[in-house]
Amino acid sequence: MQQQISVITIGVLDLDRSKRFYTEGFGWTPVFENEEIVFYQMNGFVLGTFKLSSLEQDMDRAGLKSPGAFSLAHNVATREDVDTVMDQLLLAGGSMLRKADAPPHGGFRGYVADPDDHAWEIAWNPFWPIDENGLVTFGI
Amino acid sequence: MQQQISVITIGVLDLDRSKRFYTEGFGWTPVFENEEIVFYQMNGFVLGTFKLSSLEQDMDRAGLKSPGAFSLAHNVATREDVDTVMDQLLLAGGSMLRKADAPPHGGFRGYVADPDDHAWEIAWNPFWPIDENGLVTFGI
Repeated sequence: MQQQISVITIGVLDLDRSKRFYTEGFGWTPVFENEEIVFYQMNGFVLGTFKLSSLEQDMDRAGLKSPGAFSLAHNVATREDVDTVMDQLLLAGGSMLRKADAPPHGGFRGYVADPDDHAWEIAWNPFWPIDENGLVTFGI
Repeated sequence: MQQQISVITIGVLDLDRSKRFYTEGFGWTPVFENEEIVFYQMNGFVLGTFKLSSLEQDMDRAGLKSPGAFSLAHNVATREDVDTVMDQLLLAGGSMLRKADAPPHGGFRGYVADPDDHAWEIAWNPFWPIDENGLVTFGI
């Protein structure tokens, strides 16, 4: 079977507040939006920010909790970019989880929560190639 | 900035139990594993299954909760494949959240939780192209 994930969907309470974080913080452009969901075309898959109540209804599962046991990582090209991007995210409504430092496995990274408490790792990892289309390959 | 996510990391309590779900249920092959994490190379990014305690330590945030307010979707090529894949996931340690049916926006989809209660949507969506490398493009 294809090793493929088509969509990452995160539940949000306020679509406008969330959209500000993703468009102003990351500088991303939606590919589609209505009153219930905003989609962003990513590197080979789609990110969806979906009203939490709609996600629960679609999943047929009430009571989804935050902060959930997951994180999403955005990799940057240089070590200096880590703090730059984290600062932008904080200005766009994010909150600091962990200031950037060097993890045991190398590189440099910190964590910021989005307005719905979803964790984003901003990482510089010189061992993981990223091509011009943003496609990321595992490396050691 | 690149519209790019490099890693999706989900917290797991038992790495072996989780690995059985992903290798036997989805049929995926790890690209790296140690006693703390298993990585899978996906379509332009990496999926990590990380010991929950290690994820909390890395994020500097205790008390991550399940089920979190997110879902991951795997798209299949035909309507019939939805039930086939869901059945495999249930046999590999998953649990049913929502039996497959047709959502208002078209296609066909159901939800299965992995052994750590993370939600997977298995979807047939004829409007979203998937190329031979698993790269998914938003469509309407």
